[in-house]
Amino acid sequence: MLQDLGSRDVAFTETVRHIRQTLLAIAGVSKGEGNYEVVLMQGSGTFGIESVIGSTVSPAGKLLVIINGAYGVRIAKIAKTLKIDTVTLEYPTDTTPVPADVDRMLTEDQAITNVAVVHCETTTGIINPIEEIGQVVKRHQKSYFLDSMSAFGAVLFDFEKCGIDFLVSSANKCIEGVPGFSFAICRRDSLRATEGWARSVSLDLLSQWQGLEANGQFRFTPPTHAILAFAQALCELQAEGGVEGRAGRYRGNHEALVTGMRELGFTEYLRPELQGTIITAFHYPVHSAFQFDEFYGRLNDKGFVIYPGKVSDLDCFRIGNIGHLFECDIHSLLAAIRATLSEMHIALPSD
Amino acid sequence: MLQDLGSRDVAFTETVRHIRQTLLAIAGVSKGEGNYEVVLMQGSGTFGIESVIGSTVSPAGKLLVIINGAYGVRIAKIAKTLKIDTVTLEYPTDTTPVPADVDRMLTEDQAITNVAVVHCETTTGIINPIEEIGQVVKRHQKSYFLDSMSAFGAVLFDFEKCGIDFLVSSANKCIEGVPGFSFAICRRDSLRATEGWARSVSLDLLSQWQGLEANGQFRFTPPTHAILAFAQALCELQAEGGVEGRAGRYRGNHEALVTGMRELGFTEYLRPELQGTIITAFHYPVHSAFQFDEFYGRLNDKGFVIYPGKVSDLDCFRIGNIGHLFECDIHSLLAAIRATLSEMHIALPSD
Repeated sequence: MLQDLGSRDVAFTETVRHIRQTLLAIAGVSKGEGNYEVVLMQGSGTFGIESVIGSTVSPAGKLLVIINGAYGVRIAKIAKTLKIDTVTLEYPTDTTPVPADVDRMLTEDQAITNVAVVHCETTTGIINPIEEIGQVVKRHQKSYFLDSMSAFGAVLFDFEKCGIDFLVSSANKCIEGVPGFSFAICRRDSLRATEGWARSVSLDLLSQWQGLEANGQFRFTPPTHAILAFAQALCELQAEGGVEGRAGRYRGNHEALVTGMRELGFTEYLRPELQGTIITAFHYPVHSAFQFDEFYGRLNDKGFVIYPGKVSDLDCFRIGNIGHLFECDIHSLLAAIRATLSEMHIALPSD
Repeated sequence: MLQDLGSRDVAFTETVRHIRQTLLAIAGVSKGEGNYEVVLMQGSGTFGIESVIGSTVSPAGKLLVIINGAYGVRIAKIAKTLKIDTVTLEYPTDTTPVPADVDRMLTEDQAITNVAVVHCETTTGIINPIEEIGQVVKRHQKSYFLDSMSAFGAVLFDFEKCGIDFLVSSANKCIEGVPGFSFAICRRDSLRATEGWARSVSLDLLSQWQGLEANGQFRFTPPTHAILAFAQALCELQAEGGVEGRAGRYRGNHEALVTGMRELGFTEYLRPELQGTIITAFHYPVHSAFQFDEFYGRLNDKGFVIYPGKVSDLDCFRIGNIGHLFECDIHSLLAAIRATLSEMHIALPSD
């Protein structure tokens, strides 16, 4: 990040080319014989989501958003703000979507052209059945969009078998880069079919791709330092054994976390078979002395930042274990939680 | 940039607060007794422009874009893509807009609600008469938007006297930060009046402001490292004597450049009284051996990156002198240009 390359510099455009190629390799698809392309987009992950939603639903199109958490709700909000005809299929946050429901909805409402779902809903940490849903969407020949923000790079899945047309993730999640841009992995034919559909200049997915293809340059100034950092992050991902290696480390972190939290008397919000290994939601302990803000503040003072809950109707907090974190860090966190509970005079089951 | 702060970390939100306050001070306006607010927006400068255009023209509004270069054209393109009713007032690229024309247009077309103009058109380096235009816009009680991308921080002007409602610039121009975000300086009343107008979730200016005001946090992940770098860039601007100091250095750079280029036989595209000190367009020399690509490549090999022309109907190239550049750098550039002309067997006037 301390290199200040110009965005038209050959060393920079070569780095962008390398990044785009490597992301295809991580997805297990390719550009040459394959049919896939990568588009980098300035801004946070939500900018990438809005870019795909705003660019890949035709003016006469209709979007189905499958929702079981806050990030599904956000996709629907983006689509409605863009005045895209939008319907939703909603589930409780502790439940995965049912592919048969998607099938019925696509059968009953033939106007639907695009289907969107979140891969790992970080509202709860749930992993959605993206392959089963994708097969339904493909049977109906609709365009399939996957918000894989908190999953891509650390969750194994078969991109082509899922029938994904557009996937979005961001620099600063499982790839462990720094924030500044997001990326879309696109089926080339699906992308090419979107000519003239973009509802924005900045977030025009097809034009951004055409710019990158034409001369390797961004249409508008890219976050050069964040992109150089991402190239390094990709090297580190490879050194760790790729998606499989990283998935293994996150799984180890998650297992250590759940085991330790249970010992401290906490219970998870989700049933284990639905739980991903990226972020985990825990119920508040049933104890009159437990105040979340105090718990959060005391952990923060010890150097551990956790997340408040995002499930509005339940008293939960969340712990993420992605990033440059290892099992030893999880054990340090558990020790800090134990000390914090003791400071708050909350007895442990073993006490 | 090597600090990895969380976007909800107090040290980070304090930095954001400090940046927003300092930008008001640079603009010579204030938040407390004054009526101004700063909104930071993820993405490049164009994302900031689109955020203001898409958020501050009402659904029934009509935008007048004053154009004398590519960046004016881009504003109109953004507005049209957003399906905003848009009219333009166009001038040749070597001419400044005439305030009386704006007056006539606003008188004749009462439906116009917003007026947009570029401060320094980097197409040519021309500085537009933003105060005279602003006074016309204010007399007609319209909303006034200034694209000050390549001027803010190094060009002295009276923000309030110009009657600016919204100004956009970006992290990586005259403030000399790294790319990753842009910022809007907004009259609070004008901003507050835009409730419900935003045509995008990511680029919703009012919601972004409300988020920053509520808890100092961004709605969506900010480019934390670019923002920390910007805080440092603001310190360096202050150490240089603020806008006046920086304007002085850029003026010195520009004068050294023009003097040296004239000695080498080059002529400027603009008349001197219209020329800003940020970027300068030069005609190609009239010589059969001059090929721009070769000229560019040979300079690039010597470590100097210049810009191709952006004026389509004329053979020009451009030289920018902003960033961490000093007169000695300009003299090194001139020596490199002299050597390059010699390599290309193009005789100098003094030869």
